[in-house]
Amino acid sequence: MRIPQLPSTRDDRLSEALQAAINNKTKPPGSLGLLELLARRIGLIQQTLTPHIGRAAIAVFAADHGIVAENISAYPQSVTWQMVENFLDDGAAINVFARQNNCALHIIDAGVNHDFGVRAGLIDRKIALGTANFAQQPAMTSAQCEQALQRGMDWISELDADVVGFGEMGIGNTSAAAAIMHKITGIAVSECVGAGTGLAAAGVFHKQQVIERAVVHHATVTAPLDVLRVFGGFEIAMIAGAMLKAAERRMVLVIDGFIVTSALLVAAALQPDILDYCVFSHCSDEHGHRRMLEHLQARPLMQLDLRLGEGTGSALALPLLHAAINFLAQMATFSSAQVSEKST
Amino acid sequence: MRIPQLPSTRDDRLSEALQAAINNKTKPPGSLGLLELLARRIGLIQQTLTPHIGRAAIAVFAADHGIVAENISAYPQSVTWQMVENFLDDGAAINVFARQNNCALHIIDAGVNHDFGVRAGLIDRKIALGTANFAQQPAMTSAQCEQALQRGMDWISELDADVVGFGEMGIGNTSAAAAIMHKITGIAVSECVGAGTGLAAAGVFHKQQVIERAVVHHATVTAPLDVLRVFGGFEIAMIAGAMLKAAERRMVLVIDGFIVTSALLVAAALQPDILDYCVFSHCSDEHGHRRMLEHLQARPLMQLDLRLGEGTGSALALPLLHAAINFLAQMATFSSAQVSEKST
Repeated sequence: MRIPQLPSTRDDRLSEALQAAINNKTKPPGSLGLLELLARRIGLIQQTLTPHIGRAAIAVFAADHGIVAENISAYPQSVTWQMVENFLDDGAAINVFARQNNCALHIIDAGVNHDFGVRAGLIDRKIALGTANFAQQPAMTSAQCEQALQRGMDWISELDADVVGFGEMGIGNTSAAAAIMHKITGIAVSECVGAGTGLAAAGVFHKQQVIERAVVHHATVTAPLDVLRVFGGFEIAMIAGAMLKAAERRMVLVIDGFIVTSALLVAAALQPDILDYCVFSHCSDEHGHRRMLEHLQARPLMQLDLRLGEGTGSALALPLLHAAINFLAQMATFSSAQVSEKST
Repeated sequence: MRIPQLPSTRDDRLSEALQAAINNKTKPPGSLGLLELLARRIGLIQQTLTPHIGRAAIAVFAADHGIVAENISAYPQSVTWQMVENFLDDGAAINVFARQNNCALHIIDAGVNHDFGVRAGLIDRKIALGTANFAQQPAMTSAQCEQALQRGMDWISELDADVVGFGEMGIGNTSAAAAIMHKITGIAVSECVGAGTGLAAAGVFHKQQVIERAVVHHATVTAPLDVLRVFGGFEIAMIAGAMLKAAERRMVLVIDGFIVTSALLVAAALQPDILDYCVFSHCSDEHGHRRMLEHLQARPLMQLDLRLGEGTGSALALPLLHAAINFLAQMATFSSAQVSEKST
């Protein structure tokens, strides 16, 4: 497995030319706030003064987690496959939001504990019927982890998109993401663990204890790929691989909530420049997400108290990406509209 | 002039039925955050379990302000009419964002200091060629203020829309809005005054001094309509009237930034129940807006550091309103999708 080398998005002349184009629009300089940063970022990713994001895709990676044996989720494991069926039947929140935004939706089985048989619409990249319980042993073998990363890269290699929003489904995966966050950022486990799909306080405390014990059990693990292998999930590894390949291909990466950002923590530990390809859609209501974003020095576009996953935040942010592209392409300039410029 | 009486949006049975419908969707309870509150609010405004917002409009009210004689803006007054021409020529940010959202855009001359002649697309409701300088005398006469409110009500009476987003254009109007904010909320002038279109620190300090002196000059003014008359603008008064009538007609009001929210402060002082009809699109980068929203106990949907006005925040928030309506209408339920419910 080869980790993709990322082309640089840094280009001072293009950056200045984009900023000049933005400042020349009929509005006070800076008055479109984060949309201006977004327009410049997408221009730099695509290396153009006229960025375009007509082809947008959401990719939802689903997998199961052995850690559910420790009773750390408010929902039974079967909800993972049931929700995959729901995605395929067009019934979930991500279906609604992807459709609203004219966005292609791809559902990938990275390792769900269920035999879907032949199922139209489902992209089968299953590594195994769920990971092992990381409270007792590494979640994946080295071969499984590499395979998941590689399948993520390979899948993105064939995707026809300018923008890819990442999403996930996997009962138990906030536990995996919290452990990854702790190991990669050094932030205390108590700050990384949250209610997930809706644990009460006692459940959150138990989940925290399970993860505390697991990180002690695997105390010697520190390298990013080892952290991913020991604590991660097949969907998290596949997303990390997909992100790296997407950046190599100069796609705009739209980052969703807590689990997707944990995959980015791994990807950014391997290739820090990947952050230049990212748009952070929202700060979720899951406890650790804010600290994760701070660690990445990321400013999210929205804060809607979402905690659903599935890529819902990514999908909901797409209109803001379009707004950034559109104002840059379509607004009049001070000279074309004969509007007076700032006088003081 | 009669201030509209607002129908109540409170209905415990409908509220519970909406909440039950939301909770029955295939997602953890509460996991769509503010979108769930939004779905319930729009259902209550429209008094239905199946809300619809197919007809959305943005109304941009433009007017000039005598206070510009005090040198409180970074741009010359002529920018007001020049930007109105830009709106009519489809070149401004609000044109781009309204078009992106398939939203009707209406440009209303409430009192711009310019003779537009006969101008296709411009809705002429001009009260006068700008207000008087409130540093020296009341901005409006009583007759002018009543006329502006009434014209706002009358215009909305004929609008065919489920949702109306308010916007404005008027060089100097952050000064008017800051004075209104101070008088209605009691918050110190220094907390109400900001950089507007982009004053440097010395300019902000001068603007603050101008407003400090003006509120001393008009110290006895306290009633909301008197505050509006003495410090307001024709666009602010027309928006306040339009808001009241729109709520009477059970429209969803989408609130933009600092100036539009100042009009709402007046409207809410007259009819507090109007707040139940409001969706707060964003917290702007203009200094006083956050405190204004706190005063109204309003939670904005977005925080994008916008400070452009024109209704841009209102337009950008529309996809989130659609998302709220759409998840309620289109998502599967736990039983229809045969997904297991929460177990702990």
